[in-house]
Amino acid sequence: MKSVSIVGGSGYGGGEALRLLLDHPNVEVKQVTSRSHMGEFVYQTHPNLRKRTQQKFSDPSQLETVDVLFLALPHGEAQNHIDQYTKLATKIVDLAADFRLRDAAVYEKWYGAKHVAPEWLSKFVYGLPELHRAELAAANYVSGVGCNATASNLALLPLVKADLIENDAPIIIEIKVGSSEGGAEGNPASHHPERASVIRTFSPFGHRHTAEVIQEMGVTNVSLTMTSVDLVRGVLATAHAKVKAGVTTKDLWKAYRAAANENSFIRIVKEQRGIYRVPEPKILAGSNYADLGFDLDESNGHVVSMCAIDNLMKGAAGSAVQCMNLMMGWDETLGLEFAGLHPV
Amino acid sequence: MKSVSIVGGSGYGGGEALRLLLDHPNVEVKQVTSRSHMGEFVYQTHPNLRKRTQQKFSDPSQLETVDVLFLALPHGEAQNHIDQYTKLATKIVDLAADFRLRDAAVYEKWYGAKHVAPEWLSKFVYGLPELHRAELAAANYVSGVGCNATASNLALLPLVKADLIENDAPIIIEIKVGSSEGGAEGNPASHHPERASVIRTFSPFGHRHTAEVIQEMGVTNVSLTMTSVDLVRGVLATAHAKVKAGVTTKDLWKAYRAAANENSFIRIVKEQRGIYRVPEPKILAGSNYADLGFDLDESNGHVVSMCAIDNLMKGAAGSAVQCMNLMMGWDETLGLEFAGLHPV
Amino acid sequence: MKSVSIVGGSGYGGGEALRLLLDHPNVEVKQVTSRSHMGEFVYQTHPNLRKRTQQKFSDPSQLETVDVLFLALPHGEAQNHIDQYTKLATKIVDLAADFRLRDAAVYEKWYGAKHVAPEWLSKFVYGLPELHRAELAAANYVSGVGCNATASNLALLPLVKADLIENDAPIIIEIKVGSSEGGAEGNPASHHPERASVIRTFSPFGHRHTAEVIQEMGVTNVSLTMTSVDLVRGVLATAHAKVKAGVTTKDLWKAYRAAANENSFIRIVKEQRGIYRVPEPKILAGSNYADLGFDLDESNGHVVSMCAIDNLMKGAAGSAVQCMNLMMGWDETLGLEFAGLHPV
Amino acid sequence: MKSVSIVGGSGYGGGEALRLLLDHPNVEVKQVTSRSHMGEFVYQTHPNLRKRTQQKFSDPSQLETVDVLFLALPHGEAQNHIDQYTKLATKIVDLAADFRLRDAAVYEKWYGAKHVAPEWLSKFVYGLPELHRAELAAANYVSGVGCNATASNLALLPLVKADLIENDAPIIIEIKVGSSEGGAEGNPASHHPERASVIRTFSPFGHRHTAEVIQEMGVTNVSLTMTSVDLVRGVLATAHAKVKAGVTTKDLWKAYRAAANENSFIRIVKEQRGIYRVPEPKILAGSNYADLGFDLDESNGHVVSMCAIDNLMKGAAGSAVQCMNLMMGWDETLGLEFAGLHPV
Repeated sequence: MKSVSIVGGSGYGGGEALRLLLDHPNVEVKQVTSRSHMGEFVYQTHPNLRKRTQQKFSDPSQLETVDVLFLALPHGEAQNHIDQYTKLATKIVDLAADFRLRDAAVYEKWYGAKHVAPEWLSKFVYGLPELHRAELAAANYVSGVGCNATASNLALLPLVKADLIENDAPIIIEIKVGSSEGGAEGNPASHHPERASVIRTFSPFGHRHTAEVIQEMGVTNVSLTMTSVDLVRGVLATAHAKVKAGVTTKDLWKAYRAAANENSFIRIVKEQRGIYRVPEPKILAGSNYADLGFDLDESNGHVVSMCAIDNLMKGAAGSAVQCMNLMMGWDETLGLEFAGLHPV
Repeated sequence: MKSVSIVGGSGYGGGEALRLLLDHPNVEVKQVTSRSHMGEFVYQTHPNLRKRTQQKFSDPSQLETVDVLFLALPHGEAQNHIDQYTKLATKIVDLAADFRLRDAAVYEKWYGAKHVAPEWLSKFVYGLPELHRAELAAANYVSGVGCNATASNLALLPLVKADLIENDAPIIIEIKVGSSEGGAEGNPASHHPERASVIRTFSPFGHRHTAEVIQEMGVTNVSLTMTSVDLVRGVLATAHAKVKAGVTTKDLWKAYRAAANENSFIRIVKEQRGIYRVPEPKILAGSNYADLGFDLDESNGHVVSMCAIDNLMKGAAGSAVQCMNLMMGWDETLGLEFAGLHPV
Repeated sequence: MKSVSIVGGSGYGGGEALRLLLDHPNVEVKQVTSRSHMGEFVYQTHPNLRKRTQQKFSDPSQLETVDVLFLALPHGEAQNHIDQYTKLATKIVDLAADFRLRDAAVYEKWYGAKHVAPEWLSKFVYGLPELHRAELAAANYVSGVGCNATASNLALLPLVKADLIENDAPIIIEIKVGSSEGGAEGNPASHHPERASVIRTFSPFGHRHTAEVIQEMGVTNVSLTMTSVDLVRGVLATAHAKVKAGVTTKDLWKAYRAAANENSFIRIVKEQRGIYRVPEPKILAGSNYADLGFDLDESNGHVVSMCAIDNLMKGAAGSAVQCMNLMMGWDETLGLEFAGLHPV
Repeated sequence: MKSVSIVGGSGYGGGEALRLLLDHPNVEVKQVTSRSHMGEFVYQTHPNLRKRTQQKFSDPSQLETVDVLFLALPHGEAQNHIDQYTKLATKIVDLAADFRLRDAAVYEKWYGAKHVAPEWLSKFVYGLPELHRAELAAANYVSGVGCNATASNLALLPLVKADLIENDAPIIIEIKVGSSEGGAEGNPASHHPERASVIRTFSPFGHRHTAEVIQEMGVTNVSLTMTSVDLVRGVLATAHAKVKAGVTTKDLWKAYRAAANENSFIRIVKEQRGIYRVPEPKILAGSNYADLGFDLDESNGHVVSMCAIDNLMKGAAGSAVQCMNLMMGWDETLGLEFAGLHPV
């Protein structure tokens, strides 16, 4: 049994990591910190964990050494104390945006602030196993992934890897998201009477996660359009791109099948019958799957590639635990077996 | 045309009153005040009113005289300035709880604070036309109604008026409500990820609106159980009582039909076919109707009486405008003609 | 008072037309037909109309002559009897797709069946007042509009009218829709446990309403991607296009302001503060407004134009009534004054 | 490894049982039958099981012998073939209502039809471990439980077991339910535009599950009022009863604590802080917990006892698997470890 602690465990990402780690067969949760909820039972904040743990949120300044440290702080905080955290654990998984981008200038451009610990950027591996499995197995420090970036990157992965799309044509990614993406802190727009039933395009382009798509996919002419819908968990990214001349549906099948074959958590959903013919986030709540689908308009080369995930699982805590498994040399799927529910 | 102003127009009750008054054929809205949104266009807060009015929220301290003044302040505020308000208008409609209860001691018991202007309590008529139509026609000062009290009172009205229920048997009223009941100010529990999909019994008994049911229905052994569900607008009150010996379904039909015949906004919903067989709040959004239904278990005298309303209409602004119509000698239904939507 | 009847009044479009016509000051509803609900009270199907009308669904074969006939039949039916309908009324408004397309070959391509009455196609005016106001004033026969086509056309209208976009760049329109779009007849995918909480991209491209966008906007390289979300009423179309070199945000403001100035039911929503900064369908339920917004990425000419409507109002019955008003020489907004609700 | 098959696996109860059994460490799923989906992959109906099993629905007439047979047929079917099923397996778990009631006359009263196999009624144990743990450990045949009955029975359990309530006072149980309770087959009222956002009291009293409450709790003066709300999974039962003279909140705490201590899946939720202070079904989706809460109005002895469950888990498949575990002599919680999600 390895010891694990979570810094910033009262947020949604931290809470979900906690749930996964409590049930993980190879680890033991030592501490879960929260400045605002210090001393309270974690189940008072995360009511699903009642009767699963009697742990209380502990003081972040009283962190002890562990084998693996999960950082689940608001963006911009982990970089301030990264020297200290690395003294407490040899393996670190950060769920926030602090160490996702390799280039400090790019970080500054998208996050509007100088990075405090740029020398650490190159020490972190981007925490999406489908892109960096081998590096993760050798890594000590793993960054989190943006949930919208993950849905986008996985929607593009088969196309990019098989070199099927035209690089100079723009890639438009329309992303629909649930409310948990906004985090555990409320704001006027998240008040239920205002947030219920919305179809709210809160960002037409320029979302920060775009930087992760550019970095990881090597595409430049890409934009993410963000629309909130009435759902708590879930992201659907619908990517519009143009295939190279001559690319057929058969080529696409080959590329998508390869992605599913090489990755335990990637599934292809492209059915001719039944209710669930395309990827849908609702059935993924709590699961670590990324469901991919696609369609090609052969008349003009317009390909529509879809990826559905649970933003708190594959888009955050699930990928984080998967990365820990890889770093520790364990089976990648350990502790991530929940299939999701139907109906739901 | 009569002039009307609204004090506290940025809340949900005030906003809904504003919408109704802007479309009311006999009135002209002069001012809408808001301390927090002063100087902003009202349509920035109430986006449905875009292109309907260029009015801005004005300074509450700059109120001018009008024919009718609507008070839509948080509970407990209007009583502090009632002397001043009555100098500005001969007719006042208060949407808050300040002048609903006739007895200052009862007010203190349920609201936990001494009433600041107890001498005014007797000057207000309780603003539910179905109970006080004649008095309202002669009134200058009208109180608001609690939305849950209104659903409860109208569910009980036919039974009480026809003297059909046993007074010593307890009356259990189970009330399911949407999120707009909590007002425009958010709180941690109204954050969408926490509030969505709930069935949350936030008050098993002791809700303040109980006082209005006791006062208006003359029943004493009554409790209200409040449960939030996933809906923005709407209240369904389901009242459980015991009928007197010998009371039959036919007697109930007679009592409910009388209520519907005497009141423009009361409808009976008790169908044997179709989808909408019982009262349902969802089809009442924006309408001033109160839909009543009932069922009697003749084996034991258990009667279940239901009332569905839109909490912001019949449960607040709609009844308020209806009261204004009565006070002014106009047709009771003026400005309240919207039928509601289907589907919705 | 002019007489009006509705053929096929038990569906959602017909029901909404009925609600509007019952409250319309210049018309009287004579008959509402329904084959499946013949003899039943219309309020049993459309429960919002209880106490508003005692009308029953009548036999479609017993239609009488009227001034204006609304056809609200399933697609493909009206064309079979159009000769007969035109004998019953000099003015006809068809809500279905039968007479929307001017070219019988185009109809056959998108609807997969030969048009039965191609000679009638040229006699109908496409029923979107924002595009054909003058022709509608002179018309006797008006087609309905596709709800998704309407959201798309109005999103593109300012751009196309001011000639701001590059014609050879593809236009991608991502459309999010509520469940009422599927009509009143259920299917396995509309069963609540399967349909709730979805983000379901049921058509990546090739939706039939595309034909109306091509016809009305004169664009060819356009695709519509359809995604169902958890909402009953509402459409949001987000159109991605490329502006011509040199086009600025200021040019866009001018074009959008012109659209709002020339059309009573077009509003621009582009705020820097508050919760409602962009067009949102939820506040449009029951209203005839089309809310437009836009944003331009000046770094690459990518323009995002949004249009939100209520699919049953501006996208169906609302536009139909607006067209009737124009045909009859009445004020365009008559009977369409409802502002929509907030919160909702 | 024991072999298990499911008869009627395309419904919601059967699908959920399948999900649990596929992940259960001690069993292997041999066959899943479905008449309507025979030959199709089970993941086409239950999309959460994609990549978890390549099993296809098999022909019910080709059932092979197994160690444990789960019956998940529509009510009324299992009794027709129970002789045959018992030849295929020594252990049977039936999820339907066929063998829940001990008395054939009671069955006929509530289900409106003579029981076909009354001689089997006494051979089945009512499948709620919290009531019949010892008998289940010795049983071969286990009945399912009604989901509403389960929520009601567990709400009453601490009160009844400790003999705290007055037997002659009526017990009113108000039950709010999600849409999955209606099963996988749609109907006009489950069509999303009609079912969304409802608060629909579809049964004021007389629901069939009442029979299970009477049988299992030994109470007679009890009624269940059923109200559908906008949620897919979940039941909240709120029971109103009267405590015996002298019973205090402390007595209640003792009784509820005992229930939680004696039963792995019972939790008490009664907090003074935080968002989740009372039992709520939404956080139970996929979990087998039953969350209990209570409140006593000491002024009049009115006790409100709440129980929240996931109707497809603790109210159906979860309890069924728990019963299998007991019958087989395994740890009761095996395969039922999922904690539920937050937020959701």
